[in-house]
Amino acid sequence: MSAHMPIGRMPMEAALARLAAIVGDRASIAAGVLADHGRSEAYHAARPPDVVVFPETTAEVQAIVNLCRELALPLVAFGAGTSLEGNAAALNGGVCLDMGRMNAVLAVHPEDMDVVVQPGITRKQLNSQLRDTGLFFPIDPGADASIGGMTSTRASGTMAVRYGTMKDNVLALEVVLADGRVIRTARRARKSAAGYDMTRLFVGAEGTLGIITEVTVKLHPQPEAISSAVCAFPDLKAAVDTAIAVIQSGVPVARIELLDAVMMRGMNLHAKLGLPEVPHLFFEFHGSKAYVAEQAETAQALAAEFGGEGFQWATTPEERSRLWQARDNTLYAGLALRPGAKAMITDVCVPISRLAECLVQTAADIAESGLTAPVVGHVGDGNFHLLVLLDPERPEELAHAKAFNERLVHRALALEGTCTGEHGVGIGKMDFLALELGETVDAMRLVKQALDPHGIMNPGKIFRPLPASHGDAS
Amino acid sequence: MSAHMPIGRMPMEAALARLAAIVGDRASIAAGVLADHGRSEAYHAARPPDVVVFPETTAEVQAIVNLCRELALPLVAFGAGTSLEGNAAALNGGVCLDMGRMNAVLAVHPEDMDVVVQPGITRKQLNSQLRDTGLFFPIDPGADASIGGMTSTRASGTMAVRYGTMKDNVLALEVVLADGRVIRTARRARKSAAGYDMTRLFVGAEGTLGIITEVTVKLHPQPEAISSAVCAFPDLKAAVDTAIAVIQSGVPVARIELLDAVMMRGMNLHAKLGLPEVPHLFFEFHGSKAYVAEQAETAQALAAEFGGEGFQWATTPEERSRLWQARDNTLYAGLALRPGAKAMITDVCVPISRLAECLVQTAADIAESGLTAPVVGHVGDGNFHLLVLLDPERPEELAHAKAFNERLVHRALALEGTCTGEHGVGIGKMDFLALELGETVDAMRLVKQALDPHGIMNPGKIFRPLPASHGDAS
Repeated sequence: MSAHMPIGRMPMEAALARLAAIVGDRASIAAGVLADHGRSEAYHAARPPDVVVFPETTAEVQAIVNLCRELALPLVAFGAGTSLEGNAAALNGGVCLDMGRMNAVLAVHPEDMDVVVQPGITRKQLNSQLRDTGLFFPIDPGADASIGGMTSTRASGTMAVRYGTMKDNVLALEVVLADGRVIRTARRARKSAAGYDMTRLFVGAEGTLGIITEVTVKLHPQPEAISSAVCAFPDLKAAVDTAIAVIQSGVPVARIELLDAVMMRGMNLHAKLGLPEVPHLFFEFHGSKAYVAEQAETAQALAAEFGGEGFQWATTPEERSRLWQARDNTLYAGLALRPGAKAMITDVCVPISRLAECLVQTAADIAESGLTAPVVGHVGDGNFHLLVLLDPERPEELAHAKAFNERLVHRALALEGTCTGEHGVGIGKMDFLALELGETVDAMRLVKQALDPHGIMNPGKIFRPLPASHGDAS
Repeated sequence: MSAHMPIGRMPMEAALARLAAIVGDRASIAAGVLADHGRSEAYHAARPPDVVVFPETTAEVQAIVNLCRELALPLVAFGAGTSLEGNAAALNGGVCLDMGRMNAVLAVHPEDMDVVVQPGITRKQLNSQLRDTGLFFPIDPGADASIGGMTSTRASGTMAVRYGTMKDNVLALEVVLADGRVIRTARRARKSAAGYDMTRLFVGAEGTLGIITEVTVKLHPQPEAISSAVCAFPDLKAAVDTAIAVIQSGVPVARIELLDAVMMRGMNLHAKLGLPEVPHLFFEFHGSKAYVAEQAETAQALAAEFGGEGFQWATTPEERSRLWQARDNTLYAGLALRPGAKAMITDVCVPISRLAECLVQTAADIAESGLTAPVVGHVGDGNFHLLVLLDPERPEELAHAKAFNERLVHRALALEGTCTGEHGVGIGKMDFLALELGETVDAMRLVKQALDPHGIMNPGKIFRPLPASHGDAS
């Protein structure tokens, strides 16, 4: 029996009865529930599972994994449903594990500045529970993603330039392996050289190597002071050069986001910001009052050198929150430029020295291809997104957008970049991964085959299986 | 033929002739050369290889790997020889790859703040070549280790509290796999979500999964100002509590090192520091002039709250360098307490909230067991070392020290810690690793078997092979 055979061809009642024996009535085949777990925030076609289960404990997850292995059922973990590359699409049907009920904070360790959570908790839920501790969890991908999902896609977002990505902030994981064993990848010590870095192996594995059931993440002190500002630039290159100069100066900028003129138009439409429709940098600085002032002063001086104008400070928490909420909503701001459209969201990341070049070439490509594609970028990391607006019902638009994205990825790879800075591979970047890393992908396949020999864990993602492993599930 | 069969039992001349065909006269079986590549800086017995080769290119390394696979010869990469857990011991003889000639800086990218190097370059060589760039490589494990060796043991050291460990600073690797393929684990972009984190898989793998032939590491801006200070404390707990308070305050302390009274005596003997022989914290702050002053002020105020006395500032570069050189030489300072002794260097790391407890219990154990074992610790990370002084020629001393270390590791594990914060597993921590991570070690073994099915890569390190893989090398 192949792991790629959809559950529909199996004795469905038997499988459901076995699942019900594990989770009781927390299994659903209701059409609405299946649809909710199969659709995508981006342009990918809906791929619903055959059944959605809502586990509440690691033991239940373990029992489900054992069942799926026995019945050769595909198993896809599902967090908040905010991934962008079809990372949780149930390509072969099977069982979707909705982790939403496993959303408890298990232990807060203020002195150690870490927290142990179940994977279904979202980042906003977590931060709301941490409010009184003086600590916070800084990774902010925009959407209110789950911590498990963010771990699995190696998410990052606006504050990665200061606080790192999920790779830098996950201390330890509890994982149910495909063979049913429950492992803990590391202790809670701040660092360790104890063997292979199994924690980092599961961070970014998109659920293809095991199911994450517990996550220990680092926390950071809530800054004494926060200051935000926006600054307009004559062109993209001036904005990028400013970002490079700020980072090289050693200013630990907390956020430094680039928005192009088209995106500013969308944001004005969507959030009524009333800002000039030219390239902007959005800054945020964290630290003591004096240090924040010093950082801001340095950044402002550097921006002025590159023609930055109209440094505007958001001094109250309300203004700040309005600004960053607008930034977090760039997807909707972008969509405001073409009501009814969907977005193909690109995700290349290049060395920052090549960023201006990449952006300028891409702007020319956009102009030539007649696309509407606003830009928003985590410019401190060299990572930027284009929201390529399209009507997914019109195949020629989708093909046009895909061809543009392919040119973009080739351009980024030629500049020593990556096809995905933070969204993961899912199904959308599979072919680009091979272009980017060549035979390294074969080494990934060897790891996959070693840890999931029957291919039950989120099959069909990241890479296609090795030919030899096709259909050999027992 | 087993990979564990020493080369001595093989047609040695044939193997040497094949090696000579690859590296010419850069292969040696001279007794002194073999001994140099088999001995340990710590207490482990010498385990020399059968032959040492000095490759100069990735292509040569690749040819050597292919030869070793064909002949089932163990292959051990060797950097600067400063590892502490027998990580590069040639347990089964075979070929030692001395990477010392592959020590070039291949590309500096100042705007991107990264550098591409060959693995044999040492950290001091690298920093000396970077001097005029305004950037530096901050990871400082004390010894002048090679970048390849530091990568392979996931090294960290005194500045990890501010700049992270090797895991956080390696951007990409070129690796020769056991099957002879040369892979590049990532592009030079600052972050990526492109599939499994193969970079981090090789960081800390101690040469058991492949031979690293190129390393891209992050650089950091040379701080505008640096300030160092020492502060005496009434007891260990007061020093640890100060460290916790400093870190929780958000001060990005660059180094915060704990030295106990015994270690201070050793340092006075060895470096004539003339400091009181009570527990001390050594601090270093990096940043702008104003920010360094602010950080130092905050730390000094916090230290005073916990009874810290006599904050002494090293204001000139010379004083600072004298201070940190003394700290870097704690191994020799410790040995000064018992001339002629060797040191067993322990390496546990616990959550910082448990550090005082761990240190106090350990101090009681030392007192009871009559050992001389000065303490030096990266207290910001919860990682500390004891230099257990012993005469390795006296088996009862070695046994006594080993029993003490075992109690220490059990203590650290009970406090959610790890047996090794930064030295790696090598041969010294193999049994502790299983205690620490349980079945996670089996998952590591599966990865090892997938990437090195014939067990030629640094065999006998980190964990013992799965029974099924014994002797199945072709």
